[in-house]
Amino acid sequence: MKSALCYVGNKRLELQPAKAMPPAPGEVQIDVAYGGICGTDLHIFHGAMDQRVRIPQILGHEMSGVVASTGAEVASVKAGDHVVVYPLDSRGETPADRGHSHICRNLKFMGIDSPGSFQSSWTVPQENVFLLPPKVDLRTAALAEPLAVACHDVRMGGLRRGEVAIVIGGGPIGMLVALVAREAGAQVAISETNDYRREFAHGLGFEAYDPGDQRFADWIQQQSGGSGADVVFEVSGAPAAALAMTGLLAIRGRAVLVAIYPKPVPLNLFDFFWKELQLVGTRVYERQDYHRAIELMASDTLPLKKMITNIVPLAEAPQAFDHLRGNPSAMKVLIDCR
Amino acid sequence: MKSALCYVGNKRLELQPAKAMPPAPGEVQIDVAYGGICGTDLHIFHGAMDQRVRIPQILGHEMSGVVASTGAEVASVKAGDHVVVYPLDSRGETPADRGHSHICRNLKFMGIDSPGSFQSSWTVPQENVFLLPPKVDLRTAALAEPLAVACHDVRMGGLRRGEVAIVIGGGPIGMLVALVAREAGAQVAISETNDYRREFAHGLGFEAYDPGDQRFADWIQQQSGGSGADVVFEVSGAPAAALAMTGLLAIRGRAVLVAIYPKPVPLNLFDFFWKELQLVGTRVYERQDYHRAIELMASDTLPLKKMITNIVPLAEAPQAFDHLRGNPSAMKVLIDCR
Repeated sequence: MKSALCYVGNKRLELQPAKAMPPAPGEVQIDVAYGGICGTDLHIFHGAMDQRVRIPQILGHEMSGVVASTGAEVASVKAGDHVVVYPLDSRGETPADRGHSHICRNLKFMGIDSPGSFQSSWTVPQENVFLLPPKVDLRTAALAEPLAVACHDVRMGGLRRGEVAIVIGGGPIGMLVALVAREAGAQVAISETNDYRREFAHGLGFEAYDPGDQRFADWIQQQSGGSGADVVFEVSGAPAAALAMTGLLAIRGRAVLVAIYPKPVPLNLFDFFWKELQLVGTRVYERQDYHRAIELMASDTLPLKKMITNIVPLAEAPQAFDHLRGNPSAMKVLIDCR
Repeated sequence: MKSALCYVGNKRLELQPAKAMPPAPGEVQIDVAYGGICGTDLHIFHGAMDQRVRIPQILGHEMSGVVASTGAEVASVKAGDHVVVYPLDSRGETPADRGHSHICRNLKFMGIDSPGSFQSSWTVPQENVFLLPPKVDLRTAALAEPLAVACHDVRMGGLRRGEVAIVIGGGPIGMLVALVAREAGAQVAISETNDYRREFAHGLGFEAYDPGDQRFADWIQQQSGGSGADVVFEVSGAPAAALAMTGLLAIRGRAVLVAIYPKPVPLNLFDFFWKELQLVGTRVYERQDYHRAIELMASDTLPLKKMITNIVPLAEAPQAFDHLRGNPSAMKVLIDCR
């Protein structure tokens, strides 16, 4: 009998016995190697999504693994292949979604709406399985999903070489957005109130400032020739940041909304008018973003290994979740599911 | 001695004597025919821009006229030509504005920052003078400026043939946006709380609904095949409309911000995230929008004459401004400056 990390309600996690599911036709059974803990997993753990998940819910949607076996009609991968899973299930898509499968109205998210990857064996439809080039380390590969988020955000922001980009919020997604933006040729600075996270950003080679630091404003002016930033990525989820972000932007600048705001918050619409700014909402990723994330991992140009601040065995996952509560020194924590 | 309509401070307008200014080199002296009263003129009249205008301020930036004489080095127009004026003065533009002349940081607006068109003779730089085709009526031509606003808004919203567009706010700009959007091939409905203005919209052949009317929601669903609107133009300036507009939009829909919000207001950022919406700030127009507006007037395909609900002589302009205070039955009021 194998184990799975389950949310059992009342802000509690438990390891519960789980059966390996032999693959049906069109399915792939994966021996999960590493799973990453995401903010959404923490939200579920903290009870914020109790109305959506069905108890017990096997968590996890960031992962890497090795194909154990394949069902009939599976030609894209074979046993032994290293893979990652694209956790969006768009089978409920309708014509009214106009082809935007990744955010279709009946979208299901694996690890939220169906069993997730924090278990040693996971069986999923072959459409969701992406083959990894052999040279990608399985630990790094567990970052494919959040890296695809970053690729999506940078692409949706239309970021071009030479532009000045500000990332507000230096958590795991913010750091990945900054890395992908820099790789796209932008001049990048991170706005972050936490000392530890600013230090972490410096370790990745980024400028990082407290939002109130005069040197931050000076840096933007200097890099942009006095115009202001071309793109701001709002990753912090702080209402004060949403209100202030438009002040950082140049005429016709773009604010890319990455953070999730459950409730309406005030924006400076006068700035949107005066400078003809744009706000670009983003959510998850499309298949092309997964391809780009895998390409970036294969090229080994980003310091992704530095993003992994801890690896814990599946048996210790509940404690790892506890430890992450309000701990800014943790960046990406992986669960070793083997 | 000629007369000019001046804002003299303390929410008062006066007709004051004004000299005709002979054109310097590069300038054009225009016998103003008709001037349109804009919301901005009303704002100045109501004291909302006392910190910006210099007393006495000759108001007016919507107009049509006939060239009276031209200074040296003017080749684009000659005496007798029918013209309109593009009232943006971008001579203070710097490289930091990156070519966005129309919203450059040192932009001056004629009729706000320099003498305006509510006078019988107006002298302006030749770069600001656009020649009209002979067949455009001078009364219709006085709508060139607000029509260019509408052309800009529709262009910035990327509106395509067959899309469903909602215009929130059925004042003069809202009606013009609706007309240009329909001309661009969109299915258009107007959301408007005022009975008179909904009737006016019907008279222009538009669907028009109270925002709370269930038939409004039904119309959007029906026209869009259940997807929601492609584009919403927020022209009302009502915070409740800004908050509700995202609920009308389809996945990847665009909200075009036309109204001016002096203070921050709450937006539903969850909708921006969930449906990957975009917000597009717009301000005034570019030269291409003036060309498009003149082209539309020359083609005579829009019922622009119906937009003109009253024409008053310059001598009665102060009373006309008084009359416009909170009067939804007026749409576009022209001042006859001849």
